[in-house]
Amino acid sequence: MRVECVDLNSDIGEGFGPWTIGDGTDAQIMALITSANIATGFHAGDPNIMRRMVELARQHGVGVGAHPAFRDLVGFGRRYITAPAAELVNDIVYQLGALREFARLSGSALQHVKPHGALYMQAARDEELSRALVQALQRIEPTLHLFCMEASITCRVARELGQPVVREFYGDRDYDLSGSIVFTRRVGALDPQAVARRVVRACVEGKVKTVDGPDIQIDFESICIHSDTPGALTLIQAARDALQAAGVPVRPLPEVMSARRAALRA
Amino acid sequence: MRVECVDLNSDIGEGFGPWTIGDGTDAQIMALITSANIATGFHAGDPNIMRRMVELARQHGVGVGAHPAFRDLVGFGRRYITAPAAELVNDIVYQLGALREFARLSGSALQHVKPHGALYMQAARDEELSRALVQALQRIEPTLHLFCMEASITCRVARELGQPVVREFYGDRDYDLSGSIVFTRRVGALDPQAVARRVVRACVEGKVKTVDGPDIQIDFESICIHSDTPGALTLIQAARDALQAAGVPVRPLPEVMSARRAALRA
Amino acid sequence: MRVECVDLNSDIGEGFGPWTIGDGTDAQIMALITSANIATGFHAGDPNIMRRMVELARQHGVGVGAHPAFRDLVGFGRRYITAPAAELVNDIVYQLGALREFARLSGSALQHVKPHGALYMQAARDEELSRALVQALQRIEPTLHLFCMEASITCRVARELGQPVVREFYGDRDYDLSGSIVFTRRVGALDPQAVARRVVRACVEGKVKTVDGPDIQIDFESICIHSDTPGALTLIQAARDALQAAGVPVRPLPEVMSARRAALRA
Amino acid sequence: MRVECVDLNSDIGEGFGPWTIGDGTDAQIMALITSANIATGFHAGDPNIMRRMVELARQHGVGVGAHPAFRDLVGFGRRYITAPAAELVNDIVYQLGALREFARLSGSALQHVKPHGALYMQAARDEELSRALVQALQRIEPTLHLFCMEASITCRVARELGQPVVREFYGDRDYDLSGSIVFTRRVGALDPQAVARRVVRACVEGKVKTVDGPDIQIDFESICIHSDTPGALTLIQAARDALQAAGVPVRPLPEVMSARRAALRA
Repeated sequence: MRVECVDLNSDIGEGFGPWTIGDGTDAQIMALITSANIATGFHAGDPNIMRRMVELARQHGVGVGAHPAFRDLVGFGRRYITAPAAELVNDIVYQLGALREFARLSGSALQHVKPHGALYMQAARDEELSRALVQALQRIEPTLHLFCMEASITCRVARELGQPVVREFYGDRDYDLSGSIVFTRRVGALDPQAVARRVVRACVEGKVKTVDGPDIQIDFESICIHSDTPGALTLIQAARDALQAAGVPVRPLPEVMSARRAALRA
Repeated sequence: MRVECVDLNSDIGEGFGPWTIGDGTDAQIMALITSANIATGFHAGDPNIMRRMVELARQHGVGVGAHPAFRDLVGFGRRYITAPAAELVNDIVYQLGALREFARLSGSALQHVKPHGALYMQAARDEELSRALVQALQRIEPTLHLFCMEASITCRVARELGQPVVREFYGDRDYDLSGSIVFTRRVGALDPQAVARRVVRACVEGKVKTVDGPDIQIDFESICIHSDTPGALTLIQAARDALQAAGVPVRPLPEVMSARRAALRA
Repeated sequence: MRVECVDLNSDIGEGFGPWTIGDGTDAQIMALITSANIATGFHAGDPNIMRRMVELARQHGVGVGAHPAFRDLVGFGRRYITAPAAELVNDIVYQLGALREFARLSGSALQHVKPHGALYMQAARDEELSRALVQALQRIEPTLHLFCMEASITCRVARELGQPVVREFYGDRDYDLSGSIVFTRRVGALDPQAVARRVVRACVEGKVKTVDGPDIQIDFESICIHSDTPGALTLIQAARDALQAAGVPVRPLPEVMSARRAALRA
Repeated sequence: MRVECVDLNSDIGEGFGPWTIGDGTDAQIMALITSANIATGFHAGDPNIMRRMVELARQHGVGVGAHPAFRDLVGFGRRYITAPAAELVNDIVYQLGALREFARLSGSALQHVKPHGALYMQAARDEELSRALVQALQRIEPTLHLFCMEASITCRVARELGQPVVREFYGDRDYDLSGSIVFTRRVGALDPQAVARRVVRACVEGKVKTVDGPDIQIDFESICIHSDTPGALTLIQAARDALQAAGVPVRPLPEVMSARRAALRA
């Protein structure tokens, strides 16, 4: 099914103290996306950066999302840490609240939550973690959007418990036949036009080619392009332009969700 | 002026990971106090502890307060770190939000904020920090109670800007003639009866003896006894019992504040 | 085979900043053991504690060992973190050197290295990690003793590459039929006499009962009793006394290793 | 007095985990300098980076120095933390040992130690800290070179106690009349030719212009240009070329020290 419009999300604010990540183009990226996953201090991000990013998002009308992670600065949240689901959910609650307070200070509100890196992948395949997370969200804010892959346990559990989900398509990651992305620690430079074609095809045809060869069907409300991918700004601009040209404009998440509901009713 | 009733606050949840502080009597202390200053992760406290402490406070009807600090686990927030006021306020906002989210999860709300250790002392004498902090609180939650010493810049600035203050009397710390407490890195064991007499006298006569010799007048709504003082539980129990016997019962903060306003109107 | 004498090791210095672990009896335990595994800052231990512990070891003639761990204060090094073997070895080298410098400052030398918690268990079953670790030790100090379980890959690899090993018997942990200890996050109080009988039997008969039921044979040069086990001091004292009574005295590691070599030659 | 040759030092390895600092040109800078101050994990640097940097230094014949700092990643060691001198020295010993172990692994040795940022500045004006540090170095390695400014208490104390000092001239920092550098949190882009002229003049005339207006005399064995100054690589290359052209070649520290001693004898 062809989508009418689509949300565009990116990880933002992934510096720490004196350090910036990727090309240091957070401010420019913020002008191109509609949902920002703002790092919340455990894998990256510090209170000063969080405040600036939330303020920047407000100025650009970008939806503010929390991007909680394993407590692992040196590993950038890309390493798995064995911990009980309940403890990981406490880590997420902590980070969620920290970011929400900056939103409050800025006069805005949280739009969504999206776990980062290894925590995202672990939730995707771990029923206990997904369930504990969604149960906590149900108590904290049952209308907060949870970003996930359609082919994830997180998505299934959230739907079951009534937490709204936003399914993502990864413009800069490879897929396997299961519909899951192939996790890599380091992503090389990508061709902007190839990425642009990929996201347009996913939006128009609902298909993506896998590393295994065949296409799979893919359904989503948001496209993710990582800000720490080298040349991220160019990739995001190229994707956005190509989507516009293909008649699938990038729009704020609430608008995308409404259009999707309308289409489903039709 | 004799006070009718008084709030009793203590720092709570100051363990980290596998470690506990003081005598490990947080759960028993929670049953005796009316306001808990819950450590928020920068000097002590981790998400698991914070969740348990917020839940425990809810069960005991204890007011939940955030206890933000300098980012300094190894120094337990007792060391001063030179940082711009705006950055310290961001650190406080981060920690405040983290704790608020656990309150939200627990179905309760934040009652107050009280900076910890060196950050409390620095705000007490630093106009720029106090002003930046109170201005942030005014935007975040202009009704959140801010704990401070009456003889502090924090208190003056909060009153000027309209943030409600709760003035504290330190039952287990020495005072100097300026009305400020004498900050010490390590507090030895105290005599429970001496502490009890001290707090009763402060409540009944409004006076405390200073390390300089003479008494000073002291006015306050809450008594603080630290949970990491050796024998804290015994001190708190003794103070509470002595106050009860002296006709100055320990009561929840909202009740104390109402009584105080009524007395001022009378 | 009955052993003539045995080394007794314990994890020491596992506080951090204001916090102590277990019963806070490090100083007393140091008087009873012959090898100290001193925490090196990643799961516990800070430079001030490390300095005191190294000095204390020197005073008591206790062998100084580094106790490196995963970088995980909040999890006390008991959680597994997925990281390449080469990176974990770099973490170990860092911690080893930090402790060695305090030994140098104290006029003593490192006797051994013993990874902590999850890192110890991971090395025990991971050929790549054990090999990378031992190869690094071969370049750094080919005579440094490496503590491990006999039933571990670490032991096999160290012997193969020529790094001297000290095999341990865990007095306060359960064994399974494979000869590996059953890893637990929290150990309850143990009966000192039961622990004492267990270590005496292991020394005299070379046998330990497993959680699976049957006995297994066990061979070792050192007995480990953890200092964070509740009542550790009593356990260690009981074990030491019982060993003395059974004619298997606790002796410094170099003496134990000499006796062992002599026995093997006989 | 005109110097015959000069050492050139730079802070190196100041990334952390996924982050790099400045222009990420450590490897190129290493080819131009003769002494590397390698970050040791407290303000920057992690074990993986430290290993790479030590190895790189060995390949380029660059002297390996430890660059210990306050424990303050988020503040990059540029904030002062109030701590007893003895505790700060323990922090330095820890970091010194960690780096020394990588040198040991790499088959090389430590050449020097140079505290970083705020710790360097604090030692420069704090007799107790300088004395405690030098006393520790005297016990650890009385021949280890200590980098400092001539106009510092550190320099005076080291000379008094017999620890060899290397006095630095800061090519990319402003001086005041006291001969101390003006500490700034953020340094803007500098003109390479201006920096080159400045270092040549300092070497040839022994003078530097101060922010107060007048020149001061300056004497030193090493020139420091920071690697996190924007365009650091260009600055260092320009300075090196200009020095060569002016007949003051950049040479390894041992050679510079010998030449200096010979000149003093003449």
